[in-house]
Amino acid sequence: MKYRISANVIRRLPRYLRRFELLDRQNVEKISSSALGERMGLKASQIRQDFNCFGGFGQQGYGYNVKQLRDDVGGILGLDKTLTAIVIGAGNLGRALIANFDFAFCGVELIAAFDTSKAIAGTRLHGTPILDAGELNEFLDDHHVDVAVLTMPKSATAGTARLLSNHGVRGLWNFTGVDIDADLGDTLVEDVHLSDSLLTLGYYLRGRTEQPGEDGDKL
Amino acid sequence: MKYRISANVIRRLPRYLRRFELLDRQNVEKISSSALGERMGLKASQIRQDFNCFGGFGQQGYGYNVKQLRDDVGGILGLDKTLTAIVIGAGNLGRALIANFDFAFCGVELIAAFDTSKAIAGTRLHGTPILDAGELNEFLDDHHVDVAVLTMPKSATAGTARLLSNHGVRGLWNFTGVDIDADLGDTLVEDVHLSDSLLTLGYYLRGRTEQPGEDGDKL
Repeated sequence: MKYRISANVIRRLPRYLRRFELLDRQNVEKISSSALGERMGLKASQIRQDFNCFGGFGQQGYGYNVKQLRDDVGGILGLDKTLTAIVIGAGNLGRALIANFDFAFCGVELIAAFDTSKAIAGTRLHGTPILDAGELNEFLDDHHVDVAVLTMPKSATAGTARLLSNHGVRGLWNFTGVDIDADLGDTLVEDVHLSDSLLTLGYYLRGRTEQPGEDGDKL
Repeated sequence: MKYRISANVIRRLPRYLRRFELLDRQNVEKISSSALGERMGLKASQIRQDFNCFGGFGQQGYGYNVKQLRDDVGGILGLDKTLTAIVIGAGNLGRALIANFDFAFCGVELIAAFDTSKAIAGTRLHGTPILDAGELNEFLDDHHVDVAVLTMPKSATAGTARLLSNHGVRGLWNFTGVDIDADLGDTLVEDVHLSDSLLTLGYYLRGRTEQPGEDGDKL
């Protein structure tokens, strides 16, 4: 399958996936675009348009099948193909992700973490081996790694990103707050900007307008 | 100022703010909607439409003034009014946020953190006092708290959310992954879904389509 889907639609797919998972857990079998829109803060027309991008997902007039939707969106996101990941930097944030983040939900298998601290090298955290950062090069030569989760100090980010890219790691999930603007060839950088989320909450708390309305994108 | 702005536009404001900050640091004084669109992966028409929602931001034909844009967007987000925040749960994630997250950039002052561990109660982390969770009730009676950052275990989330709401905390920044579906009156919940970000990166890595294109929302 090869789709030409706009990046804005792609960004909505994970939200749809979460919503369908939730509906399925609530034993909802079928849902109309308008009911779905109401729950997700999207217009029904937007939802129908999104679904049409991928080929429809079922008979509009009769409601969409929730399990089918979940499987279809999961298929488009490629969850049937597991990606491998490593965490670079097992400080507070790295450890929080290793211990609590649901990599499997994203179709990702966490295979190792790296840290410069000799004290924790050789230990395991929630089953994930923590290795000495000095072993990273050799590890990358021996293992196929799709994604590196960057949770190391800012100062180490640029150099490590280049090294990872040179070793064929094609995805960097960047929590460092550093803009990685070097040309990394085929390597994609996905920046996590937590400030966007707090700024949005702050906007509503400051009372400049009412809460998210009908065309909101709150999930 | 009171605007009626759609939630989708609100969600883009933090991205604009970050971009203008970056442009200003790069000493870019003026920028056209098309150049801005190219850097942000948005259509120029989308940008002009967004800016029109808030009253224009300057003379379109001559390019937008970057400092002015930054200040105007900051003003709409209400950054002139500082909000107070507390962190509930000083485990790995809580500590990572306390130590590294730029609350000030979001117009937020972190005034305390709470944890059930007696071992760390009374200590400070990057200047923030860590208090015993048993003192939370009294603290909320004595201090005005706008935002609670929820980084505690899942099992404690629902009860704590109710307690916070009952004490007048109007904003919950929720990292727990728990759906807080109780009716919390005026209290808003902003969920952080890191999986959305990794799923999007995974989509591109799995090669179902090319990288984010012209109407992408990669910043």
